[in-house]
Amino acid sequence: MTPRSVARVMEDLRLDPRTAPGSVNLSSDTQTRPSGGMRRAIAEAAVGDEQSRTDPTTLALEEHVADLLGHEAAVFLPSGTMCNEIAVRLHVGHTGEEVVAEASSHLINAEAGGPAALSGAVLTPVQGDRGVFTGEQLADMIRPPGNRYAPVTRLVCVEQTANAGGGRVWPLDAMQRVVEVAKAHEIRTHLDGARLLNASVASGIEPRLYASLFDTAWIDFSKGLGAPVGAVLAGGTHLIEQAWRYKQMWGGALRQSGLLAAAALYALEHHVQRLAVDHANAKALAQGLAGIDGIDIDPSHVETNIVYFEVDDAPGFAAGLAAHGVLVGAKGRRRVRAVTHLDITADDIATAITAAKAVMGGRG
Amino acid sequence: MTPRSVARVMEDLRLDPRTAPGSVNLSSDTQTRPSGGMRRAIAEAAVGDEQSRTDPTTLALEEHVADLLGHEAAVFLPSGTMCNEIAVRLHVGHTGEEVVAEASSHLINAEAGGPAALSGAVLTPVQGDRGVFTGEQLADMIRPPGNRYAPVTRLVCVEQTANAGGGRVWPLDAMQRVVEVAKAHEIRTHLDGARLLNASVASGIEPRLYASLFDTAWIDFSKGLGAPVGAVLAGGTHLIEQAWRYKQMWGGALRQSGLLAAAALYALEHHVQRLAVDHANAKALAQGLAGIDGIDIDPSHVETNIVYFEVDDAPGFAAGLAAHGVLVGAKGRRRVRAVTHLDITADDIATAITAAKAVMGGRG
Amino acid sequence: MTPRSVARVMEDLRLDPRTAPGSVNLSSDTQTRPSGGMRRAIAEAAVGDEQSRTDPTTLALEEHVADLLGHEAAVFLPSGTMCNEIAVRLHVGHTGEEVVAEASSHLINAEAGGPAALSGAVLTPVQGDRGVFTGEQLADMIRPPGNRYAPVTRLVCVEQTANAGGGRVWPLDAMQRVVEVAKAHEIRTHLDGARLLNASVASGIEPRLYASLFDTAWIDFSKGLGAPVGAVLAGGTHLIEQAWRYKQMWGGALRQSGLLAAAALYALEHHVQRLAVDHANAKALAQGLAGIDGIDIDPSHVETNIVYFEVDDAPGFAAGLAAHGVLVGAKGRRRVRAVTHLDITADDIATAITAAKAVMGGRG
Amino acid sequence: MTPRSVARVMEDLRLDPRTAPGSVNLSSDTQTRPSGGMRRAIAEAAVGDEQSRTDPTTLALEEHVADLLGHEAAVFLPSGTMCNEIAVRLHVGHTGEEVVAEASSHLINAEAGGPAALSGAVLTPVQGDRGVFTGEQLADMIRPPGNRYAPVTRLVCVEQTANAGGGRVWPLDAMQRVVEVAKAHEIRTHLDGARLLNASVASGIEPRLYASLFDTAWIDFSKGLGAPVGAVLAGGTHLIEQAWRYKQMWGGALRQSGLLAAAALYALEHHVQRLAVDHANAKALAQGLAGIDGIDIDPSHVETNIVYFEVDDAPGFAAGLAAHGVLVGAKGRRRVRAVTHLDITADDIATAITAAKAVMGGRG
Repeated sequence: MTPRSVARVMEDLRLDPRTAPGSVNLSSDTQTRPSGGMRRAIAEAAVGDEQSRTDPTTLALEEHVADLLGHEAAVFLPSGTMCNEIAVRLHVGHTGEEVVAEASSHLINAEAGGPAALSGAVLTPVQGDRGVFTGEQLADMIRPPGNRYAPVTRLVCVEQTANAGGGRVWPLDAMQRVVEVAKAHEIRTHLDGARLLNASVASGIEPRLYASLFDTAWIDFSKGLGAPVGAVLAGGTHLIEQAWRYKQMWGGALRQSGLLAAAALYALEHHVQRLAVDHANAKALAQGLAGIDGIDIDPSHVETNIVYFEVDDAPGFAAGLAAHGVLVGAKGRRRVRAVTHLDITADDIATAITAAKAVMGGRG
Repeated sequence: MTPRSVARVMEDLRLDPRTAPGSVNLSSDTQTRPSGGMRRAIAEAAVGDEQSRTDPTTLALEEHVADLLGHEAAVFLPSGTMCNEIAVRLHVGHTGEEVVAEASSHLINAEAGGPAALSGAVLTPVQGDRGVFTGEQLADMIRPPGNRYAPVTRLVCVEQTANAGGGRVWPLDAMQRVVEVAKAHEIRTHLDGARLLNASVASGIEPRLYASLFDTAWIDFSKGLGAPVGAVLAGGTHLIEQAWRYKQMWGGALRQSGLLAAAALYALEHHVQRLAVDHANAKALAQGLAGIDGIDIDPSHVETNIVYFEVDDAPGFAAGLAAHGVLVGAKGRRRVRAVTHLDITADDIATAITAAKAVMGGRG
Repeated sequence: MTPRSVARVMEDLRLDPRTAPGSVNLSSDTQTRPSGGMRRAIAEAAVGDEQSRTDPTTLALEEHVADLLGHEAAVFLPSGTMCNEIAVRLHVGHTGEEVVAEASSHLINAEAGGPAALSGAVLTPVQGDRGVFTGEQLADMIRPPGNRYAPVTRLVCVEQTANAGGGRVWPLDAMQRVVEVAKAHEIRTHLDGARLLNASVASGIEPRLYASLFDTAWIDFSKGLGAPVGAVLAGGTHLIEQAWRYKQMWGGALRQSGLLAAAALYALEHHVQRLAVDHANAKALAQGLAGIDGIDIDPSHVETNIVYFEVDDAPGFAAGLAAHGVLVGAKGRRRVRAVTHLDITADDIATAITAAKAVMGGRG
Repeated sequence: MTPRSVARVMEDLRLDPRTAPGSVNLSSDTQTRPSGGMRRAIAEAAVGDEQSRTDPTTLALEEHVADLLGHEAAVFLPSGTMCNEIAVRLHVGHTGEEVVAEASSHLINAEAGGPAALSGAVLTPVQGDRGVFTGEQLADMIRPPGNRYAPVTRLVCVEQTANAGGGRVWPLDAMQRVVEVAKAHEIRTHLDGARLLNASVASGIEPRLYASLFDTAWIDFSKGLGAPVGAVLAGGTHLIEQAWRYKQMWGGALRQSGLLAAAALYALEHHVQRLAVDHANAKALAQGLAGIDGIDIDPSHVETNIVYFEVDDAPGFAAGLAAHGVLVGAKGRRRVRAVTHLDITADDIATAITAAKAVMGGRG
């Protein structure tokens, strides 16, 4: 309408310090930006209309992820949060059903209460060990069936890796035991696989061995895989067909989504095995931080790309690092989180450790 | 993980006839595919993290659209449906409130019942004239205030252009009158502006003159503007801040959305004035069809890029056209819809008319 | 705690004019007060705990009503509105399903938008003739199945008698036709039988012949039957078991409800056949009013105990009558409703007609 | 309709063993049956139409309870569960708000998940000490404000007495501290006062000193007070007016509720001070049980009318007692609950202890 104003707006953009060149952004692996190769893949993507199932790249991605996760079908969605929220809605129907998830899980803490607001779910936390709970803990929580007074225990969710558990990898047998208990009680199961591929690379266990245990499972492309937008939810054919209704209702149905799917396919081809580099960087960061007075960290807990540690004043520490161009996240009063990803190099890790030393030294 | 399987999937893709080269796809203006220029803009977009408000291109788009629509603020969303659904949720809070919209509107008929399911809204249709209703009709429907038995009339929605009304442009004064009645009764107002820019180009009236009348308003980029994905919802600062909560909860919060926003900005620079071409093509199509026996159409009703007409057997007619490589939509037993857009040329219109003649002749 | 204050409160009560002795209360058949016989039945009722299914009187009532309505099971609820709302919830599950009901029905207009707020239902009105619509009208409204964009037509509700249709009795064959269309499309059916027994007495058709057509059906005891509180919802065993969950969740589960059930059983024994008197009184009222200038009424439309008519100024007319101790309801600007019931005698009708003459005469 | 079948149904009633004469029903204080005096009060109650606010007895009860609880207004509801559920709905609006309540509370465990299903609330448990938690525990749980990812902590609920905490009385200062923390964070407060009068009689503290701390509070009449049905929710005038909308929508609006209100007023006059007898009986029961091998109980924990204890096999123990005509509730595998009330005498307690000895002896 008024092209000049568009140009002006573009010129006037003042870059946020967080995106300034030279900064080391460890705040999240969601911060990755598409590489040149990925941008080319996007620009050249074959596209059609996703809603009429004629976007070839989106179809290819869905088919590929269904196979990767050992499920019949899959659907591309704008975000991992929508994968979680639609999955809960598929399993829970506003009748006071209970969803069990780990106390620190993304589902309970970082989706704006969506399972309750959108599915009427009673969200019941189970206290795990760094994000991992046991089948026995689940068994103890299950409500007696046929009781009209109690919520009905309907769904259990597992998050692989456990983000707020420090990126801990759920051992396959622990996961199997939880699912076994659930199935014995006719409870549905869902895998939040935001970082499932990190777990897989770290453990050497194929993604499908984890994911096919569950009624629904998903992976995210906008985290360590480095794509700009999108996640794919997998499950049985009938469930995924139902998922389309919510995708449409909530406004997640897209049009020429092939551009985004192309980035995801590119990431699957080029960015999976390299997650091992992120894990090594995270380990190096943890070991470096462990040598600094005033930082409390156990490097043996760093299994993938997430590093949690404690300091006396987390917000102050994060602000101090930011002044050195290193971005981390203060999670509460004492906890700090740093996350490695494909825009982080070994040099960046060295920079971050040096900055941390300076900040903690300045404290003395 | 398994790059070969990705390659195989890509190779194995069988193109849908609907996307075959040479076809004339009039089924919807959502079918447009990004042009070379738009693909370049996407590939070169400056990006950051949308959720932390550091994606410069998304911020630029939001600022631009807020200005274009005469509102304080705006938020990028994955689809127009999400704009409608979040807007309804901003105005309606699960207390049995009533939303009045035209009987054939997208909100009532094509969003999977979302306003009821997501906001608990009583969706009450008002019968308009080709999608346009009057302030007096609204006034007659408003429930007496303070009545605990009745739904509470809370929101009125207007769709510009009226899609199922044949792309009719709401006259500015009719719109003003509806809003005036609403405000007199403390009823909120929302503009579904999926094709507001079509209306604006057709009428010569600035978009903000329509959109600023309403509490919330949005435009879509994936329709006539030719972008692949996305829409922007505008409103007051406080409302848009609230909208972010639902965007997050429903999974509409993206990451490096600048790629999509770049396409939208490109569309605003290059594809608005050319909507006039789509309108001329639609008119030409209508006039051509009017000369065919068995097709019932009033070309004077074609104001923008949507052409509705009637035949005896709409599904049969659509199937017949498809055999000629021309795609239109059967809407019910007798109604057919054809929509022009930037991938449709004057030659395509001629092709479509010729095909329609052949199909209707074969009927004789 | 402070017994004197209770006594004081009781003494201080100022009776509302609406309950003053000598008044003729035609505002609704909900205004009936329990007779001496009914009060005795209440005082002597055998009771237990309804929730553990050990209240014998409630069990007796439920069994009796299930039989009366031709259903397997039944549940006592605090009100007819809860019967409607729970029934809708049994059939509709927050996925954008559509409920079709007559435009003037109680469900759409007098339950605070409950079907949308509690069940996420798209409430779609069908315009009937004095509350009665046809199977063909229903057939025309049903959404195509398997369409993920449209609401899913799931439930049709019929109100017998049609209250705002002037107490019109749905003819059995019209009802059968609506249900037949519904079943052919796998649409559930529900009967709001608030005044089903009025219909039955007027038509001579057994209640079960109407009620057993539907998946769920209920009758109310607090209207013409003269009990103070309560209604019973009937349906299949499985549905009624599910209903208990909502009864519990919404707070409709009671304890020693046998006191209320005793009044309902008393009403079934003593107050059903006498509904014919109410119908005769309503007819007499209609005929009396028809002779008054300025009152527009067709007495042939009065089939049961509800009398609708029009005057120039309904609120003014109602206020005028109230000054004569006659209470009626203004329903909109011109419509007036008068309802006969067991506290209304033939003399009361004469009083009301005389008062109406005086009010309309004073108008001249 | 068919009076003989009513009579037959009444005759055919087979009494449940749970209601057999001679049994000692300690399963709950909800099991009380109205006394002769209360039945007379019911039979003689002045009534009108509750919904039009012309039922004098209901109005008197509401006024009295508002005063008793130190609030501006009050509303009669069919059950305590509806009081809780409507109160939550008044404070929480389907936007992912969090409600904090004690882990064993009625709200979380015995209302069919209503707060999630009806209000979209994230129900977050806090682990108290026998039902009582601290202000500091609450403070630690409150989410940071203005965070769009987290649920919004909106409401804290306190249950007085704590039923599953063994009828423990919340100390006034503990309650004040919780409310103080809540108010400092703009969190709403609600008191589930199902047994508030038990607490008041036990502590000698006026009910209003507890109840007026909270935004909403209620008492139940169908528990220790011995009325058949009903509870009253109190709060500010505006909140109670809003409550009426949900009362209507959910079907809790009654008609001649004066009959039920009369029982409640009778209970307030005659059954409050006598709760001390129930407390003495509970203490005696606890002391008696403490002397039996295999029963684990701390009599000092019995502060009101609820007695919790542990045995090896709770369901087996309860079945054993039932064979002696003594009814208690097995709550899980090891826990047993016995509740005293106005139909339980000191002799009944002796009977229960003797039966418990016999059952546990038979175990040896």
